[in-house]
Amino acid sequence: MAVGNPTFPRMHPVSGFALGTTAAGVRYADRRDLVVMACAEGSSVAALFTRNAFSAAPVRLGQAHLATAVPRYLVVNTGNANAGTGPQGERDALAVCQRLAHLGECQPQQVLPFSTGVIGEPLPLDPILNGLPDALATLSEMGWEEAAWGILTTDTIPKGVSRQVEIDGRLITLTGIAKGSGMIHPDMATMLAFIATDAAIDPELLQQLLVEATATSFNRVTVDGDTSTNDSLVAVATGAAGGRIWEDRNHPAVIEFAALLNETTQELAQLMVRDGEGATKFVTLEVEEAATAEEALQVAFTVAHSPLVKTALYASDPNWGRILAAVGRSGVERLEVDAIRIWLDEVLIVEQGGRAADYTEVQGQRVMDREEITIRVALGRGECQERVWTSDLSHDYVKINAEYRS
Amino acid sequence: MAVGNPTFPRMHPVSGFALGTTAAGVRYADRRDLVVMACAEGSSVAALFTRNAFSAAPVRLGQAHLATAVPRYLVVNTGNANAGTGPQGERDALAVCQRLAHLGECQPQQVLPFSTGVIGEPLPLDPILNGLPDALATLSEMGWEEAAWGILTTDTIPKGVSRQVEIDGRLITLTGIAKGSGMIHPDMATMLAFIATDAAIDPELLQQLLVEATATSFNRVTVDGDTSTNDSLVAVATGAAGGRIWEDRNHPAVIEFAALLNETTQELAQLMVRDGEGATKFVTLEVEEAATAEEALQVAFTVAHSPLVKTALYASDPNWGRILAAVGRSGVERLEVDAIRIWLDEVLIVEQGGRAADYTEVQGQRVMDREEITIRVALGRGECQERVWTSDLSHDYVKINAEYRS
Repeated sequence: MAVGNPTFPRMHPVSGFALGTTAAGVRYADRRDLVVMACAEGSSVAALFTRNAFSAAPVRLGQAHLATAVPRYLVVNTGNANAGTGPQGERDALAVCQRLAHLGECQPQQVLPFSTGVIGEPLPLDPILNGLPDALATLSEMGWEEAAWGILTTDTIPKGVSRQVEIDGRLITLTGIAKGSGMIHPDMATMLAFIATDAAIDPELLQQLLVEATATSFNRVTVDGDTSTNDSLVAVATGAAGGRIWEDRNHPAVIEFAALLNETTQELAQLMVRDGEGATKFVTLEVEEAATAEEALQVAFTVAHSPLVKTALYASDPNWGRILAAVGRSGVERLEVDAIRIWLDEVLIVEQGGRAADYTEVQGQRVMDREEITIRVALGRGECQERVWTSDLSHDYVKINAEYRS
Repeated sequence: MAVGNPTFPRMHPVSGFALGTTAAGVRYADRRDLVVMACAEGSSVAALFTRNAFSAAPVRLGQAHLATAVPRYLVVNTGNANAGTGPQGERDALAVCQRLAHLGECQPQQVLPFSTGVIGEPLPLDPILNGLPDALATLSEMGWEEAAWGILTTDTIPKGVSRQVEIDGRLITLTGIAKGSGMIHPDMATMLAFIATDAAIDPELLQQLLVEATATSFNRVTVDGDTSTNDSLVAVATGAAGGRIWEDRNHPAVIEFAALLNETTQELAQLMVRDGEGATKFVTLEVEEAATAEEALQVAFTVAHSPLVKTALYASDPNWGRILAAVGRSGVERLEVDAIRIWLDEVLIVEQGGRAADYTEVQGQRVMDREEITIRVALGRGECQERVWTSDLSHDYVKINAEYRS
C-alpha cells in the first residue's frame, strides 16, 4: 500500500487525446499491459528521455522519430523493457511502430514506442502486434484510468493527476498518468509519464516548460538511487481549447500554465515516492541556507540515499546521528559544523555540532512515528534551498527486489 | 557469519607494541569494550582519519595531539562514538587522555583517543576512566586477539592479519587488527584499524606508505556507501627489529615493506566486507579498459552501490540487466555501449549492447550461486583499471540497521 493511501482522482478528459488499453499477454496473462494513445492532428508533443548510456531500443527509436515527425500515436508495453537487446531490439521496436502506423494510417515515424519491465530479454513481439487492434478499438478520451493501470509494473497503485483551471478566459485541462516505484532517481529513473492538455502551445515552448517542470519534480525524487534504461516523459498539447498558440514564456497565461504543469509533475513524482518499493514513509528533505543550489541538492541527495538514514526511518528511530553523519560526508567543502541545524518536522534536533539543548528523545520519537516526515537541514552559509522527496528502506524493498526480476 | 568463514590467524607479537583490554561497561556489561595500546619510546606513528565534516571529538583531539607530540598510548572505547556531542564531547575525550597520561606517565598530548558506537549520546566517562587501570594491567605484546575482540561493535568476527617476512636480512613483523562492518565506504567509513611493525621507519615515510596502502584497500571497499564520523587508521613502527631507519621510498627494503603493508591493509579491508552487515556474498568489481582511473572507479562504485544489483546478488539472480543499467548511469561521458563487455566470473554476459551471443541463463546461475563473485566490466576505451570490493544487500542488512541504534 502506498504511503498516505492516495486515491485515484477523477480524470478530466483532454479533448483531442484518446487512450486505449488491452491485455496483450506480453509477460502475464490477463493483465492490462498494452496502451495506445492517439494525439489529434496538429498537437504539439514534447518529451524527455533517460540519460542512461544503455538507453533502451524504444527510447533510441522514439528520439529518432521525434526528430523527424510530429507524433500521432504513443504505444506502451509493460512486461519487457526491450533494453540491452541489441540490433534485434531496435528492429522489434520499429516493427511495433510500423504495425501501429499501418493500423492508424500514419507514418511509422509518427509513432513513439515505450517499454518497461525486465531488461535484456527479447521483446515478445507477437503478443504486442496482435494486441494493437484491441487497444485501438478501445481508444477513448475517457480511457485515462485504464491506461494508468495498463502502464504499471511493480507499482501497487495507479497514479494519476488531473486539473482544470481557467486561464486567459478559457477552461484549460491538464491530465497525466505515471508509473514507477523502484529505480526512481534524478534523471528520471524507471518511470513513464504521459501528460496531456488541451491548451494550444508551441512545441518548443512546451519542451521548455517540460524541462523546467521536470527539474523540480521527477528529478527531485529518489527511492533507491538507481536509474533505468527506459525513463520517458511525454507532454502533449492538443490545442482543442482554442485560442492563440502560446509561444512566449513570459506571457501571463504561460506563467499560469507553467505553475499548473509544475504542480502536476510534482504530484505525479510524489505519487511514485509514496508507492516506492516497500515504502512505509514519505520523507521530504529540505536543505536551506546553502551557498549554491548544487550543494543544497548534494546534501539532500546524500541524506536521501543513505541506507542508514533510510533504515532508521523504517524503524521510526530518531537516530539523528545518522542524519548528521550523512550531512557530514556529503562532500560540501568547508562545511561549518557549528552553523548547521537539523529539524525533524518542528523539532530542532541538532545545533552547535551536537544534539540540540532542548531536544528530548520523546520529541524525536513523536515525529518519527509519523508516516510523513520532513527532515530540514540549515547549512548556515547562504540563501539557496532545494527540496527532495524519498522513502525509507524496508524489509519489503529487499524482498521485492530480490524476488522480482525487474 | 562472515562470507567465506575466515578464521582468526595466529598473531605474531610486535616487539615494542603492547595491547591491554578490559570490560569497562561503557554500554553493555561483560563485554570487552576498552582497549589500550602502548608504543615503545621512539616509535614512529602515522594516522589517517575520516573526512566526514562532522568528525567525532576524539578524531579532532587526536589530530591535534598528533600535530604536537609523538604518541605513546592509543585508547579505544566501543559502545559510544563521542560524535555529535559538541564541546562536552571534546572535554570528555581530553579527560580520557589526561587520565591515561597520568597512569602511564606521559603527556596528555601523547595519547590518541578513539571511540566507536552510537552517535550523539554523551560519552559515559566514568566507566572508561575507571576501566583504564584494568586495561593497563593487561598490557602485553601477546594481547592482539583480545584487542581485536575489544574494538568490535556490530561485527560478527574479530579481524586480524599478521605477517613475518625477511627484509634486508632482518625478520620483520607486521600485525594489525580492524573493526567495521557497516558504514564501510571510501574515506574509510566506520572503521578502526591499528597496525604495528617492528621495522624502523621514518615517520614521514610511514605516513606516505599508509596513504598509499589505504588508496588500494580501505578506500576501495564499500558495504552501503555510508561513511562515519570516527574512522581512524593508525600505523606504528617501533623499530625494535633494529637496523638503519628507512627514509627513502625507493630503497629496495622499503619497496618490499610497502608491498607487505598493501597486502595487510587489503586483507583487513576485505575482512570488513566479508563481515559486512548482513553480507551473504563477497563481490569483487573489476573495471578495466577505462580511459582514466577515476572513471574506472566511478563505474565500479556505481555498480557496487546499486541497491538493485546488490539485491540481485543476494537473490543469486543473474540479472545482468541491472549491472548494465548501473554501468550506463555511472555518469561517464560518451560511453560506447557497443564496446562494453561484462563478465560474471568466467562467463561473458554482455557484449554489443546486449546479452552475449553464447550466454545462457544456466551459466549465469552457476556463477551467481557462488559465495564469492567477480563482476568484470571492460569499457573498451583505454588502459586503466581499478578494483573495488563489496557485499550484497540482504534482509539482515535492513534488520540489523533498523533494530540496532548504531
